[in-house]
Amino acid sequence: MTIERTLHHFPLDPASRQVRLALQEKRLPFSEQIERYWERPESLAALNPSGLTPVLVEKDGASTVIVCESHAILEHLEERFPDTPLLSKDLNQRAEARRLSQWFEQQFDAEVNGFLLREKMEKRLTGGGSPDHGAMRAGRDALRRHLRVIEDMLGVRNWLAGDDLSIGDFAAAAHLSVIDYFGDVPWRDFPLTKTWYVRLKCRPCFRPLLTDRWMGMTPATDYDNLDF
Amino acid sequence: MTIERTLHHFPLDPASRQVRLALQEKRLPFSEQIERYWERPESLAALNPSGLTPVLVEKDGASTVIVCESHAILEHLEERFPDTPLLSKDLNQRAEARRLSQWFEQQFDAEVNGFLLREKMEKRLTGGGSPDHGAMRAGRDALRRHLRVIEDMLGVRNWLAGDDLSIGDFAAAAHLSVIDYFGDVPWRDFPLTKTWYVRLKCRPCFRPLLTDRWMGMTPATDYDNLDF
Repeated sequence: MTIERTLHHFPLDPASRQVRLALQEKRLPFSEQIERYWERPESLAALNPSGLTPVLVEKDGASTVIVCESHAILEHLEERFPDTPLLSKDLNQRAEARRLSQWFEQQFDAEVNGFLLREKMEKRLTGGGSPDHGAMRAGRDALRRHLRVIEDMLGVRNWLAGDDLSIGDFAAAAHLSVIDYFGDVPWRDFPLTKTWYVRLKCRPCFRPLLTDRWMGMTPATDYDNLDF
Repeated sequence: MTIERTLHHFPLDPASRQVRLALQEKRLPFSEQIERYWERPESLAALNPSGLTPVLVEKDGASTVIVCESHAILEHLEERFPDTPLLSKDLNQRAEARRLSQWFEQQFDAEVNGFLLREKMEKRLTGGGSPDHGAMRAGRDALRRHLRVIEDMLGVRNWLAGDDLSIGDFAAAAHLSVIDYFGDVPWRDFPLTKTWYVRLKCRPCFRPLLTDRWMGMTPATDYDNLDF
């Protein structure tokens, strides 16, 4: 029996991007339902009481599974479709990938996205006015602090959580790629992180993200450039 | 071989409490290392670069596994010690427990703890002055909004994620129990949530939390009262 899979997501939502990368890396086909989450659609709230993206719906014959938000979806995919694993068998690296995933969804989201994406993206989506310069500066400073940590990790590791590609890389790449859409990642000052990002950008799983466009928001020149 | 297990935690940290509840429910013995995380101890940063609690260290002969923060620790415990499961075999209920866990760690933490615990607890720990009334009001309003959602769920479910006790209940109880330490949960207005909390409070896994005290912070009268 084939599973009929639908992902409810918003193209420039970092949490949604993590899940798209995982689905694509695992070569699990899915259809897409784009959600304008800031308009609080009732159809989305009926699936996820928090009204947030991403939501994965899998229909397998008569049974339907609804999985809401990045943490639950990534663990579900790993348990159900373990081919092309995104968590290491090594317990320390497995824990590290999950730590990174939570770190990006909580710390990075609050300290960087809460400023940069709020000012540059959400204000435009909701008609909330022009970006506030103080908030943009606070977001850029926090981004540099986080990039420094990533740069140090990549000095001693092949991928962010250790030897193999994991959900930790996808968490980081999902967040950075949205900020990169708006041209705000200072790649030049973080060469190891740039090299790591180029490796990810060249993978087939990444391609759909590079073709994402949203009305009224033109991506930065190098957004889909593999050699930037 | 016996595993030598240490949990680095802070007694009034909701994320740490989730993990203590899970360890105790699964009857996994552990020793405790109390961390004054706001003082940014180097020994903690050496284990977890974000400097946050909880951190679980398991020594098994020559091998040591370090697992940082609630998401990674709860999944690790569930994978390694599946007796007394805290995630349902039913895929929908399994996803729901994880959704709730992420919801409390992100939404609830930002909208409720970011005000109530910041004002009542963190300011005292760090000598940050007296609570701001506006912030306290914002936190209390958000808490009531979240309690209404929980109350509705408990109208149609046995436990928060469905039929069985899960990490979803522990996430909710861990957060509410810290707010309850300061006497700020309006139990009277949410009778189903109160009944659910009494059931949890009576479980052996909950007892150690009820004896927690921190210097200079006396708990509210009913904090350790099973019949409040």
